Amino acid sequence: MNQDERASPAAELPYFEEAGSDAVVNSRMGAQADSRLRQVMEVFVRHLHAAVKEIEPTHAEWLAAIQFLTATGQMCNEWRQEYILLSDVLGVSMLVDAINHRRPSGATPNTILGPFYVENSPNYELGHNICLDGKGEPLIVSGRVVDTANNPVPHAKLEVWQTNNDGFYDVQQLGIQPESNLRGTFTADAEGSYWFRSVKPRHYPIPSDGPVGQLLEKIGRHPNRAAHLHFIVSAPGYEPVITHIFTPDCPYLHQDAVFGVKRELVADFRRVEDPAAAESAGLTAPFWSVAWDFTLAPLAR
Amino acid sequence: MNQDERASPAAELPYFEEAGSDAVVNSRMGAQADSRLRQVMEVFVRHLHAAVKEIEPTHAEWLAAIQFLTATGQMCNEWRQEYILLSDVLGVSMLVDAINHRRPSGATPNTILGPFYVENSPNYELGHNICLDGKGEPLIVSGRVVDTANNPVPHAKLEVWQTNNDGFYDVQQLGIQPESNLRGTFTADAEGSYWFRSVKPRHYPIPSDGPVGQLLEKIGRHPNRAAHLHFIVSAPGYEPVITHIFTPDCPYLHQDAVFGVKRELVADFRRVEDPAAAESAGLTAPFWSVAWDFTLAPLAR
Repeated sequence: MNQDERASPAAELPYFEEAGSDAVVNSRMGAQADSRLRQVMEVFVRHLHAAVKEIEPTHAEWLAAIQFLTATGQMCNEWRQEYILLSDVLGVSMLVDAINHRRPSGATPNTILGPFYVENSPNYELGHNICLDGKGEPLIVSGRVVDTANNPVPHAKLEVWQTNNDGFYDVQQLGIQPESNLRGTFTADAEGSYWFRSVKPRHYPIPSDGPVGQLLEKIGRHPNRAAHLHFIVSAPGYEPVITHIFTPDCPYLHQDAVFGVKRELVADFRRVEDPAAAESAGLTAPFWSVAWDFTLAPLAR
Repeated sequence: MNQDERASPAAELPYFEEAGSDAVVNSRMGAQADSRLRQVMEVFVRHLHAAVKEIEPTHAEWLAAIQFLTATGQMCNEWRQEYILLSDVLGVSMLVDAINHRRPSGATPNTILGPFYVENSPNYELGHNICLDGKGEPLIVSGRVVDTANNPVPHAKLEVWQTNNDGFYDVQQLGIQPESNLRGTFTADAEGSYWFRSVKPRHYPIPSDGPVGQLLEKIGRHPNRAAHLHFIVSAPGYEPVITHIFTPDCPYLHQDAVFGVKRELVADFRRVEDPAAAESAGLTAPFWSVAWDFTLAPLAR
């Protein structure tokens, strides 16, 4: 389609005016536009104009917004996606996730994947210790994978990943941490039970050296994520769940910088002093223990 | 302020939920945030979440939006501001301009400056021909600069710039067009009258080889601006006006890609066949003539 074909000289479309400005902009879309994109743009332009009218930005404020959006794009590279970070800190990523994962009551809620998931992490026998750098407070994680009727899901696959005790994922410290430190893949047994050893997770900051970090600073927000373990739990015939579990004592539990915390995902991490319990788990006392069941929803037919 | 000072471990702020998601995000802003920025973010987040909830984007659509915003930032360089272009084609630039220039009735309306204004263009005597490349249909522009009570504004300064007959500004074709082709600065006489010679302007496309051009193509919109001359008219004691005048016969008059056209700025360009009129103007027939008065508002005290 050349530019002239897109013009309709005879059409007397309305001129732009402050009142009804969004309708004027939306009236320009051609009939040949993809119908979903038309719908998306119609809604977006309507809300964008409403926001501008409510804000009444000065020219200087408008230019500052242009410069922020530009700098956010220019911060992105192969390793850094500043616009996803912006979406995260504005709650949009979690909102999109929530909209797309309205699960049956009782199923484990989904959360965002985050940037540090790695496919094909090492397969381990149940009980294996994924902490390879020896730092941090020992932890045992155990539980079951069940369906929404509480029946076991045998041989479910559990992928887990978390930061080390310094607040970094292995892939953020290649050559510093042992390879695949604090990540691994486990297979639940025939009764859906699983267990493995690790260390208690700690809070850590999202990357804050770019435009998004500067914005957080200006609006009086910190960049810290509440302490958590990440999981993807999957089994044939069930909807896979991407989720977190959170420690209840993290100072950022109610202030997660990316809004990832859901009440149902705050687990009961217990401190165990009993040396006999420690010895039977292959750890030394004191250690932490958390029991956590994952509930999978059947795949929609 | 370090990160720990921005945390308030005791505060039990609400967890994120789909219902009321914008309020959760906005509740995180610290009391120390700049009050105007707080206000701007509160409005923006509220409308952004409302748009996301109405659109219900899939994960793939969300990622496409992230990629578009990233590519738009990465298209920008010293010579190209793709985010301003995006603001322009979504009607936001004209909306911000309208909000900031609610003039007294009768004053010439403001429009956006556009990227091709150059400060300190050559000063010419009234009547000078600013077309230095000899291309296009000859034009005489004449009129008066008056105040809102129709009194002359003596010695007002008029800066004018426009594309050549190929649809390019001089600064887009450095080394191809004569220097300062089709731009200049004139001073009205003691009665506020002005006149100069040029060529009839033509429509031209905004830069469409980037993400914004691709978006326009996908939503069935062309990139063309309605044919116009740009003006900045100023005088001591009056609010300067950045404005356009538009030709009434342009096929894109009702479809300006950046929504710059206002009904009050469409001028009466008349075709003149009379050889005697042409000779007295120092032109050859046929030529075009437009009479246009600029009305300045007094500066607010």
